[in-house]
Amino acid sequence: MEEPVGRILETIHIPSDLRKLKVEDLTPLCDELRQFIIEEVSNNPGHLGASLGVVELTVALHYVYNTPYDQLIWDVGHQAYGHKILTGRRAEFHTNRKYKGISGFPKPSESEYDAFGVGHASTSISAALGMAQAATVKKEKDRKIVAVIGDGSMTGGMAFEGLNNAAWNNSDVLIILNDNNMAIDPNVGGVSNYLLNISKSSTYNKLKNEIWEGLGKLNGFGPKARRLVQKTEGALKSYLLKESNLFESLGIRYFGPVDGHDVEYLAQVLRDLRAIKGPKLLHVLTKKGKGFKLAEMNQTVYHAPGKFDKETGEIIGCECELNKPPKFQNVFGNTLVELAELNPKIVGVTPAMPTGSSLNIMMEKMPDRAFDVGIAEPHAVTFSAGMAIQGLVPFCNIYSSFMQRAYDQIIHDVAIQNLNVVFCLDRGGLVGADGATHHGVFDLAYMRSIPNMIVSAPMDEIELRNLMYTAQQENMGPFSIRYPRGCGCKVDWQQPFELIEIGKGRTISEGDELAILTIGTAGIAASRAVKSLKNKDISVAHYDLRFVKPLDEDLLNQVFKQFKKVITVEDGVTQGGFGSAVIEFMAANDYRAKLVRLGVPDQFVEHGTPEELQRDCGFDQKGIYQACMELLQRPE
Amino acid sequence: MEEPVGRILETIHIPSDLRKLKVEDLTPLCDELRQFIIEEVSNNPGHLGASLGVVELTVALHYVYNTPYDQLIWDVGHQAYGHKILTGRRAEFHTNRKYKGISGFPKPSESEYDAFGVGHASTSISAALGMAQAATVKKEKDRKIVAVIGDGSMTGGMAFEGLNNAAWNNSDVLIILNDNNMAIDPNVGGVSNYLLNISKSSTYNKLKNEIWEGLGKLNGFGPKARRLVQKTEGALKSYLLKESNLFESLGIRYFGPVDGHDVEYLAQVLRDLRAIKGPKLLHVLTKKGKGFKLAEMNQTVYHAPGKFDKETGEIIGCECELNKPPKFQNVFGNTLVELAELNPKIVGVTPAMPTGSSLNIMMEKMPDRAFDVGIAEPHAVTFSAGMAIQGLVPFCNIYSSFMQRAYDQIIHDVAIQNLNVVFCLDRGGLVGADGATHHGVFDLAYMRSIPNMIVSAPMDEIELRNLMYTAQQENMGPFSIRYPRGCGCKVDWQQPFELIEIGKGRTISEGDELAILTIGTAGIAASRAVKSLKNKDISVAHYDLRFVKPLDEDLLNQVFKQFKKVITVEDGVTQGGFGSAVIEFMAANDYRAKLVRLGVPDQFVEHGTPEELQRDCGFDQKGIYQACMELLQRPE
Repeated sequence: MEEPVGRILETIHIPSDLRKLKVEDLTPLCDELRQFIIEEVSNNPGHLGASLGVVELTVALHYVYNTPYDQLIWDVGHQAYGHKILTGRRAEFHTNRKYKGISGFPKPSESEYDAFGVGHASTSISAALGMAQAATVKKEKDRKIVAVIGDGSMTGGMAFEGLNNAAWNNSDVLIILNDNNMAIDPNVGGVSNYLLNISKSSTYNKLKNEIWEGLGKLNGFGPKARRLVQKTEGALKSYLLKESNLFESLGIRYFGPVDGHDVEYLAQVLRDLRAIKGPKLLHVLTKKGKGFKLAEMNQTVYHAPGKFDKETGEIIGCECELNKPPKFQNVFGNTLVELAELNPKIVGVTPAMPTGSSLNIMMEKMPDRAFDVGIAEPHAVTFSAGMAIQGLVPFCNIYSSFMQRAYDQIIHDVAIQNLNVVFCLDRGGLVGADGATHHGVFDLAYMRSIPNMIVSAPMDEIELRNLMYTAQQENMGPFSIRYPRGCGCKVDWQQPFELIEIGKGRTISEGDELAILTIGTAGIAASRAVKSLKNKDISVAHYDLRFVKPLDEDLLNQVFKQFKKVITVEDGVTQGGFGSAVIEFMAANDYRAKLVRLGVPDQFVEHGTPEELQRDCGFDQKGIYQACMELLQRPE
Repeated sequence: MEEPVGRILETIHIPSDLRKLKVEDLTPLCDELRQFIIEEVSNNPGHLGASLGVVELTVALHYVYNTPYDQLIWDVGHQAYGHKILTGRRAEFHTNRKYKGISGFPKPSESEYDAFGVGHASTSISAALGMAQAATVKKEKDRKIVAVIGDGSMTGGMAFEGLNNAAWNNSDVLIILNDNNMAIDPNVGGVSNYLLNISKSSTYNKLKNEIWEGLGKLNGFGPKARRLVQKTEGALKSYLLKESNLFESLGIRYFGPVDGHDVEYLAQVLRDLRAIKGPKLLHVLTKKGKGFKLAEMNQTVYHAPGKFDKETGEIIGCECELNKPPKFQNVFGNTLVELAELNPKIVGVTPAMPTGSSLNIMMEKMPDRAFDVGIAEPHAVTFSAGMAIQGLVPFCNIYSSFMQRAYDQIIHDVAIQNLNVVFCLDRGGLVGADGATHHGVFDLAYMRSIPNMIVSAPMDEIELRNLMYTAQQENMGPFSIRYPRGCGCKVDWQQPFELIEIGKGRTISEGDELAILTIGTAGIAASRAVKSLKNKDISVAHYDLRFVKPLDEDLLNQVFKQFKKVITVEDGVTQGGFGSAVIEFMAANDYRAKLVRLGVPDQFVEHGTPEELQRDCGFDQKGIYQACMELLQRPE
């Protein structure tokens, strides 16, 4: 579907077109760009709020900087829709996040304007420093590197590691702190408060802006005069920077805060800053969802609202509806509250995903026992370990792909000490439209290598409840439960709790020609495939192992004694994953069977719907069906 | 061997004994404790410098705090020898770091005084916040939590995540910043400079100390008066805290800097701080190696000097000598310089381990191309990715167990973008005396799950050189090379470079009764076992696979066609590791063989010499020999 393109916007194919505009055209261009984003995202769901918030910043950056020679790195990258539209992808933008379409995140293989691939938070400063260092080593003159990072990403320790290194090699980088006081949910922590204090201190701002503007008006001397102020060691500077010491103390020159929605002013400031060498930070104040009333008012909801009416803002249909199975995250959120009411030791932890994980349900009902620690996965895990060593039972909920951030803390702070932390890994498996950076496909493999760790994955919502119930029993030790994005298959999920014996799988269906062993929700597709096969009078047994570790050895002994053909299915990597655990058992016990492992092959999987991606990987219902047919045709 | 114990020290069995002392006994006790540590560590190697630096702090903490009810967390923990000696482990201290002896790090399973297990840097603040939060949830009154963290650990992003959360729940924690301007090597980065500026600003210190001491003298009102100063919003506070804004800006009250070698004063300050609720930081200045002249002067050398003469300080024998095989790290360090002289794209990166990794050789010869980024593994990897995307070839050297810190960055910033970063994982496999926290046993498993990653491990020094040479060829993509702590087996290692074909193993010895497949230095023990077997006329083939990924499929086809009995050997976890990769191949290709996987079993391995630990795990020469004998006796 062709979207209407504004008069100025339609002339912009690449940023060099933008740089031909007069400065007074920038404001109307921003309006057109904003309107285009709203039109597109209302039809084709994506990240709305963040991209609306940086429209002016995006236009100003490409107006001033010589992209792609100068390099822009967008931290996280879900705010980069404007950037994509201005850098040759306007016509394709309707394919955003769709199968074979453009990615929802910057990606160098897609465009030379995407300087660095992003998706997870807090990487941009480190990457920018590396790129700046490379320019130095390669003796490239006057190449500028700009990292745009939100205040939410700034709470990630990695961003701090970058800041701590910025001054060390006197890297010529500009860090733009896009301060909207929001990640997806409102931000938490000292940095956030600190920034709020800076930006609310009106006397300070007023004085600072007056001086700044005054200096800028000195004809031809703007940048130099400003640089002078920044360099002056006198009282004025002390006063101006008193509150900005956080960055200055790390050797980074601090500028701002400035209004992030005044594009002409931004362009002017950036032009001045472009001339200043060394590490520097510009603090820009923006509003998430800017220009779309409902998105401004409900920033969490309109972070990624799904389809909506572009006039009224009304959100059209949610993924899960009444009398349909719930989202797994809601099963987690509600069940945790039920359990916490029974067990006073239970606490909940999320790193900046209260809404995404549904821990917000517990945060509302039991604010003293549920903690949002900000984007800070390593801290979230070790904070949980600290609580566990004192006898509490933390449910630490982290998206599977973000849990990669805390791999060492899982091993070092939880597993070695054998602490009862329950890791709930949401977004396990192929997540869909967010693509390669966000697929949670490594967890079963990386978790099962860790001694003391119980590794489980429920096939449906009732199983999730029961695994959560089981995990909070006395002396369980480290316990991981992974489940996928989206909805399950059980409407009547709110059943009484049942204890699950650790390491016990279950029989989904009996059969005698071959056996399918599944873990987690991959069992749903498998059970459907088994039914299709039964319709063809092919009798296939299906077992849901529930646990990757410990494996159900009784069940496996029985399977390998009975069957000479076995298929394993998992929504995760096949190198080292669930299927590998099964063949390790098979080899260790001298069983011989033809065994086929289905799952995610040894390559990064792009974006698309989970169904499309599972199909490509060959473990959707049809893929499993075909694998069975092929295996049955092979000689024993 | 019984060490002489000082007059006061011999009366201290547990900290409550210490608390009975008069304050004037503390200084002589510190002398005795320091002497005891020097005596012990001169005989039985361990971490000297850090523990000498905190003698006074250790005594003061146990004197003032009600341990073990109050809880001390020692970040990293190699500075905790004094703590161990004062908490019931003086008599056992000669077993420090030895097989079946006490651990070189605090460990709750060893003592109730070890509040939290440590080993890796920067975890203490997060753990302390968790413990404080647990005390709140459990309504425990007046339990105090203290985290002692060095300025080196403060550069780790995780420490910042902790700081960022400290004020959020108004946790009642004391963070003691032990500032000696050293990790193992001198610190780098903005934080370090910042702290140096604070502690060098003498006017500031003088004024602050005068006021502080003046307030302390107000009889009975010391703590209250001081609290008042901290709370006052007037000019005095502004002045006092102007330079300490880094912590104050995060909502943490800053106190100090104070002299960390004045034990009576420290005790007084701690007593005052104990009474102040909420998150607070005490900045303590100490000297690493304090009280042992040579250790003070050569802090890097005396961080962990091995055996030394307790009088002269002379270091007795180094692990590797002339005409003996070199340490692997030195092969890395020297080879990298050789390669960098040939290839201008090569750069080197280490997170705070220039001496341990031997990157210091390149840092001296090519200071513009070798970078120490501080304790900051996630940053180190993404900084490398930033350089690689600009066409450089970074050799990013990180100890295997610390690389766990950067698992997400390896996947997200390097592998997805298929960048040519060469990961050199030093300290791969069982490292010996550092124990469970430091064994580098997970890497082969976690690396081989990652698409695009080449996973290799050299069997000897010449192979390491050739793998490094191979890894820097054009368009290699992500390439990991892991090698162990300590020395190899080749004296004549400095051979001309040879290109190794990716995924090609090699035959170490032919044979026909069974085949041993090894990766990395596990091949040394295997080759010796093969010789012992040959002496008994048992003919065993031995193949060094070199690559866990891609596997040498030609070689494996040949092996599985020829042999019905196969043993794999690796110095790493067997769940998901090299042996698993081999059986994945076997299963996928329908080969049938009795296959035994030797390596580190599914449990955490404690400390001891690598030989003792490899023996326990059953993959030393004798273990491999026995495994062969057993396998040969089994029917096909």
